[in-house]
Amino acid sequence: MKTKVSYQGEPGAFSEQAAKSYFGRGCAAIARESFRDIFEDVLKKRSAHAMVPIENSLHGSVHQNYDLLWKYNLFIVGEVKLRIKMNLLTLPGTKLKDVRAVYSHPQALGQCEKFLHTLKGVSVNPFYDTAGAAKMIAAERRADAAAIASSQAASDYGLVIIRPGIENDHRNYTRFLVIGRRQLRPGKNPKTSLIFATKNIPGALFKCLSVFALRNINLLKIESRPLVGSPWEYLFYVDIEGDAKKSDCLNALSHLQELTSSYKNLGSYETGVIVEP
Amino acid sequence: MKTKVSYQGEPGAFSEQAAKSYFGRGCAAIARESFRDIFEDVLKKRSAHAMVPIENSLHGSVHQNYDLLWKYNLFIVGEVKLRIKMNLLTLPGTKLKDVRAVYSHPQALGQCEKFLHTLKGVSVNPFYDTAGAAKMIAAERRADAAAIASSQAASDYGLVIIRPGIENDHRNYTRFLVIGRRQLRPGKNPKTSLIFATKNIPGALFKCLSVFALRNINLLKIESRPLVGSPWEYLFYVDIEGDAKKSDCLNALSHLQELTSSYKNLGSYETGVIVEP
Repeated sequence: MKTKVSYQGEPGAFSEQAAKSYFGRGCAAIARESFRDIFEDVLKKRSAHAMVPIENSLHGSVHQNYDLLWKYNLFIVGEVKLRIKMNLLTLPGTKLKDVRAVYSHPQALGQCEKFLHTLKGVSVNPFYDTAGAAKMIAAERRADAAAIASSQAASDYGLVIIRPGIENDHRNYTRFLVIGRRQLRPGKNPKTSLIFATKNIPGALFKCLSVFALRNINLLKIESRPLVGSPWEYLFYVDIEGDAKKSDCLNALSHLQELTSSYKNLGSYETGVIVEP
Repeated sequence: MKTKVSYQGEPGAFSEQAAKSYFGRGCAAIARESFRDIFEDVLKKRSAHAMVPIENSLHGSVHQNYDLLWKYNLFIVGEVKLRIKMNLLTLPGTKLKDVRAVYSHPQALGQCEKFLHTLKGVSVNPFYDTAGAAKMIAAERRADAAAIASSQAASDYGLVIIRPGIENDHRNYTRFLVIGRRQLRPGKNPKTSLIFATKNIPGALFKCLSVFALRNINLLKIESRPLVGSPWEYLFYVDIEGDAKKSDCLNALSHLQELTSSYKNLGSYETGVIVEP
């Protein structure tokens, strides 16, 4: 049976690409409207997993998904770092000189600004979604237009890539987390993700970090998030190196809980590698 | 002469609203296409200031703007925390029962999901931008449609707010930084923003934070950002309480520079208050 994996967005979204690169092209990737829907799919066993974007190298962490990880009793079981490669897509047969209009999400248009400036007499049109722009070109048989979207969108909508990798900055990556109902034992290069709130005491964060520093446990990520309406209260997202079930980590996490007012271990999993689509 | 303030987006964007709430409704707010454009405007003296979104309570930090703060020799001179209030806008005279279609950015539509579910027989249509949706309703005189956008967009395009504050979660804030060419002496409640990279040594971040903890200086924000392609190297964004020119802070920052491989003080400024539009 095909592994069912829920993702947020339209077919052709970068999240679908992440799902297919992690689970293989044969997985059943299920498009859903909202992030909440994909967590519900896993909880209600409509899907085995969800593919959740958590951090982009240009746009930062997705707090909404940290909120859902905090709220749902689900676990992180894997990680993918996907390079966000923007491509110019057209109907088969359209050449660059035929293109009079380009459609994509404003963020994608911004990321391809330099390439777009090289085109003459071409209108640049914001669209609600990269994959949506590809879908429109295909549905309306627009031989005079192109979309900027993922290679997944090209294959989903029968378009061809006439110019690959047209983004200004190639260091554009999105880190996705694979969510499941059960914790797995991580393989090689384990990491562990935590969310906690500190007690409102001086130097609270410094004390929390000492539990790792004193045991030479490497921090891979730290981020504070102010709790709106509660001055001096913060949530922290921390990723550490290691498996939460192994001795040093186990001790550090037990020590950490003496210092936090709330705490959740999101799971230990194998560190993801960078995937070039 | 009116103060010129550049912002990214179309007229009616939340950034315009932030500019007008900080500088007063009489300021000359200048709409620009990209974040880079607004930094260039200040550098080239086309504007006195730029209004830069740096962090949203649902969507996280805007790394792109941290990159621009790192790159440009400009300073933070102020801060605004704007509540992102979503409103249903129509042409004057249109009533809720006349609305057959709602247009907005997908993120805004998602944030107003609960309200949209209460409407019957209404199509929900993704649009590239909240202010763009308002502009379209006004330009095409759509008496059967509504946009979800800021109150600023209503006044910019001659629309009326028929339902204010329709977002699911009212704890939606964006923190904006006001950028200028010269550092100012901050008034009351000063804070200081820093970007630094740590030396690649064990417990590097822990040591960096000790410079604040040892002097009882409060941390207001901390965030790590992995440098893509450089494992174990991180940039940190840190906000601390206090004025960088005053003794404890001054000593802490000089101590910090012994421990960092690169370092930039973005400026000291008065802590912003929350603005309800």
